[in-house]
Amino acid sequence: MTTAVSLSDFRAELRRRGLDAFMVPMDDAHMGEYSPPSERRIAALSGFKGSAGFLVVSQSQALIWTDSRYLIAIKTEVDAADWRIRDINADPPLGGLQDFISPGETLGYDPAVQTRASVEQWTRALNRIDARLSPVADNPVDALWARQPVPQPQPPATPVFPHPLSFTGKSSADKRTEIGADLAAAGLSAQVLNQSESVAWLLNARADDIDGLPVARSMATLYADGTVDWFIDPARLSQAMHEALDNRVALYHPQDMSARLRAMDGTVGIDHKTCNAAIFNALKDGGVSTRNNADPVVLPRALKNPVEQQGARDAQRRDARAVIRFSRWLSQHPRLDTLTERDVIDKILSFREQNDDPVPMNGASFGTIAGVGANAALAHYAVTEASNTRLQPGLMLLVDSGGQYHNGTTDITRVWALGGQSTARQRRDYSLTLKGHLAIERCQFPEGTTGHQIDVLARQFMWREGLDFSHGTGHGIGAYLSVHEGPQSISKRPGSAPLQAGMLLSNEPGLYREGESGVRIENVELVVRKDPGFLGFETLTLVPYDTTLIERSLLTGEERDQIDAYHARILAEVGPDLSGDDLTYLQQATAPLQ
Amino acid sequence: MTTAVSLSDFRAELRRRGLDAFMVPMDDAHMGEYSPPSERRIAALSGFKGSAGFLVVSQSQALIWTDSRYLIAIKTEVDAADWRIRDINADPPLGGLQDFISPGETLGYDPAVQTRASVEQWTRALNRIDARLSPVADNPVDALWARQPVPQPQPPATPVFPHPLSFTGKSSADKRTEIGADLAAAGLSAQVLNQSESVAWLLNARADDIDGLPVARSMATLYADGTVDWFIDPARLSQAMHEALDNRVALYHPQDMSARLRAMDGTVGIDHKTCNAAIFNALKDGGVSTRNNADPVVLPRALKNPVEQQGARDAQRRDARAVIRFSRWLSQHPRLDTLTERDVIDKILSFREQNDDPVPMNGASFGTIAGVGANAALAHYAVTEASNTRLQPGLMLLVDSGGQYHNGTTDITRVWALGGQSTARQRRDYSLTLKGHLAIERCQFPEGTTGHQIDVLARQFMWREGLDFSHGTGHGIGAYLSVHEGPQSISKRPGSAPLQAGMLLSNEPGLYREGESGVRIENVELVVRKDPGFLGFETLTLVPYDTTLIERSLLTGEERDQIDAYHARILAEVGPDLSGDDLTYLQQATAPLQ
Repeated sequence: MTTAVSLSDFRAELRRRGLDAFMVPMDDAHMGEYSPPSERRIAALSGFKGSAGFLVVSQSQALIWTDSRYLIAIKTEVDAADWRIRDINADPPLGGLQDFISPGETLGYDPAVQTRASVEQWTRALNRIDARLSPVADNPVDALWARQPVPQPQPPATPVFPHPLSFTGKSSADKRTEIGADLAAAGLSAQVLNQSESVAWLLNARADDIDGLPVARSMATLYADGTVDWFIDPARLSQAMHEALDNRVALYHPQDMSARLRAMDGTVGIDHKTCNAAIFNALKDGGVSTRNNADPVVLPRALKNPVEQQGARDAQRRDARAVIRFSRWLSQHPRLDTLTERDVIDKILSFREQNDDPVPMNGASFGTIAGVGANAALAHYAVTEASNTRLQPGLMLLVDSGGQYHNGTTDITRVWALGGQSTARQRRDYSLTLKGHLAIERCQFPEGTTGHQIDVLARQFMWREGLDFSHGTGHGIGAYLSVHEGPQSISKRPGSAPLQAGMLLSNEPGLYREGESGVRIENVELVVRKDPGFLGFETLTLVPYDTTLIERSLLTGEERDQIDAYHARILAEVGPDLSGDDLTYLQQATAPLQ
Repeated sequence: MTTAVSLSDFRAELRRRGLDAFMVPMDDAHMGEYSPPSERRIAALSGFKGSAGFLVVSQSQALIWTDSRYLIAIKTEVDAADWRIRDINADPPLGGLQDFISPGETLGYDPAVQTRASVEQWTRALNRIDARLSPVADNPVDALWARQPVPQPQPPATPVFPHPLSFTGKSSADKRTEIGADLAAAGLSAQVLNQSESVAWLLNARADDIDGLPVARSMATLYADGTVDWFIDPARLSQAMHEALDNRVALYHPQDMSARLRAMDGTVGIDHKTCNAAIFNALKDGGVSTRNNADPVVLPRALKNPVEQQGARDAQRRDARAVIRFSRWLSQHPRLDTLTERDVIDKILSFREQNDDPVPMNGASFGTIAGVGANAALAHYAVTEASNTRLQPGLMLLVDSGGQYHNGTTDITRVWALGGQSTARQRRDYSLTLKGHLAIERCQFPEGTTGHQIDVLARQFMWREGLDFSHGTGHGIGAYLSVHEGPQSISKRPGSAPLQAGMLLSNEPGLYREGESGVRIENVELVVRKDPGFLGFETLTLVPYDTTLIERSLLTGEERDQIDAYHARILAEVGPDLSGDDLTYLQQATAPLQ
């Protein structure tokens, strides 16, 4: 197990800098869910490739944390002789400080990749044991990684294009004016935005810096008067992007951001939960007054306007064509055992790509999850060379995938009984999951209700069998942006925002049996107004459920009617886009339940 | 509208004391839900008799707040020429300080009847406008009220009796030792308890200081070694109570409490949310270190032990006999129109009182709510001379009542179609409510789930019709203690405690149509273990639903089976206690649904 940066080199670098230990979080400066290869410092230092982690290295200790999803994989990726592996939820870093830092010692950190809130937490915790926290100006992992034979990749710098009004439904100037006015009303002169998705939405700009996430990694300051400082290399902007920007957006090179922040006036809003500490420090160094203020772009971005809503409907209908064609191909394939999970991943992407439509498509919205049998029991399964499994009649195949269309981001999970064969146990699992999924789809709730409050509807049927699933029931979805966004969710976790008309949410209960099988059924729902004072969902996903997996006796009449109505709607709305064998297949797949 | 204390006298008293204004909350020193007539200072000063309120009097202003339940009634009780009436939720006192206090002025308050947390809030708010808060040593309302022709009642001082081990299931010594050890583990030397229910439970003592709540109003300090200072007039204790106390409970007269607090050692826990500020001030004056620590009795008190659980079952079966007999009497009454709501209240209490059982019964557990037709639309309807309405076939009657038995506290709501006649709309309302009630009863949920998470199960069916109810779905219930207790609840409000085996909860969705009708269906549920890692409910209430109000077509087969099984269980468990017409009636009332 060789790593890009060796532990002994890293420890020598820390000694050189006078640091007793150093911590490395998974985040980059933008605190988003996804980051490019240039930011994979944990992998460079430890070999661990998962998406959730944290590590600390001292002269005598090397500790690495991850969550339960990765606790098995991490053992094959990091050298157990060097690293102590811990569960980040059961045994969090702040709970066991004494294992890597002693009184009087100094723990180094890179303020660009830790949030203001986390630095505050660490400071308090270290103070209690008379240790101290020390920021570094340049990241010691980067310093060593850059000198390796295979050096740290360059940060991505893909061309930046304007995202047109026909997809966004609102000009950047209008967005900036409205949110700027909110800042003024809150007594703020400006807000610093370091989340790339917020900047992309505010400026109606898109790029390809990260697989699945069509943004330029960049930061910006939005002033109360609606003007913006955009910190991005101007050379990255296409001519069209330059032309789309009005003169109220000033471009600054990222390296000039600190100086620009230090010179700000008034009280500046920063979101302590997502703003990196380097930004806070720059403002503080400049004597600028700051106030903790949640990223003001998050909520407006989540409330899709009518153009974005129609874009989402159109993207979903188009996506449904691709998934229905894939489904026909799969169900009619003469030799399933010649196919692997990787073939499935390639095939469903090719159906999406070969899907005629004038709106551009920009690849998958996330790494497709395709799991056969026991592999599907891992909710976030990512196929590897070693795990890549052949399809086999009698097993279930779970595929969770989505596309990035310029008019909308899609996300769908379906499960198929391979070869049309299923056991009573498979049908029971599928039907318990489906019942919860249907309960969410048909629910109606008063304004002010959170996703946390309705989460139980998805779980109630499996709970009564003593079963549950450990992920959320639903996440927010962007408009040609991240497939995961807030502030809304449907989850056991409290604190989610009230659901509001215009929000997009996934509805994806699952049921997993370790070593055996996994079921997840996912549609995208648009929150819409219903009875006065009440909201509900419009289902945008238009792909039939696998009726061979539905155990009729477990459904109520209402549930059967709901499925039949959904399938009839799919035939009516997607049928006209299909022909020949695809249409015949859809007619069969959407026939009323017997 | 004459009041016990006139506003002009009160203003003169404030001037005499150098106070610009004075605030009077509804609470007494124990911060419980119920208080005796001696504590009704708001009524004495304003005439308002509701159970939720707050008032402030300055030299020029008199403002009174209450919640939406009382906003109509209060107008008939207070003199609108003197008082400005406000909604305490829409327009809370802290939000409109400038209406009754100006910069430089002093707002007086009685620290004995305000919590530590509220005093902190008021201090911060007044500081912001350069006003200040000033405690009084003796309450100015009391000072004036005591001198009236009909003076302030004496505080209740009913005899205090031991509550025997056969009902409590655990000795006071054991309770004190266990909770004391928790205090020690938390680094606390003691905890001051000012909630009478906590003291009563900890010391296995009961009295009759408050209608419906069988406690002695008293406070205590529990030390980490399990010893207790009990602040109560020793003359109130029965001989049996004196004998039941071991020598680790020391008695102090309430007037000696402050001196005793001032002399405490170590760090003393107080619950800022429920501890009155006078206690905090006494500790502070004595230089005693304190820490905010939730009342440590609340959770153990909520977790009923096996003896308390069996007591609750027995009390419920006995209570069911009374309510079933009442139900027979009502349904067979030849002249309903000769009866009023008050007759119903008297009759149901008399059935409870004439109910043969060796365990003593101690009256109603709260003021019975009996509402005919539109009166039932008020969720907390309390009949008055003016509102007392005659029963009438074709209307629904709602009765929410309970008994205080020495082995358990009961609380049940049933609705009857008077004369057995009902409209489709009445049956629909009843059935939508019943479906939610049944969904709660049959649900199962993983450990760690809160009542907030399952609340939607009770509301889902009416939500889909654009209907809702504005009270909680369920509250905790004591063991021969308060009919309302925490920390558990089933509610839209977040923050309720996880449900745990042994907790008692009401399950009482409702559906109210202003000016027309009200439905509420309430059973008491015991939280019990189910599948491994899962909890669910055992229904303790054993009274049939009114099947003439059930619209069969709105029920699923599962719901019909659930009702039939419940009714069969009632016949099997309560039937043997009944005979003659009562048994025949029960057999008919529990017949399977057609």
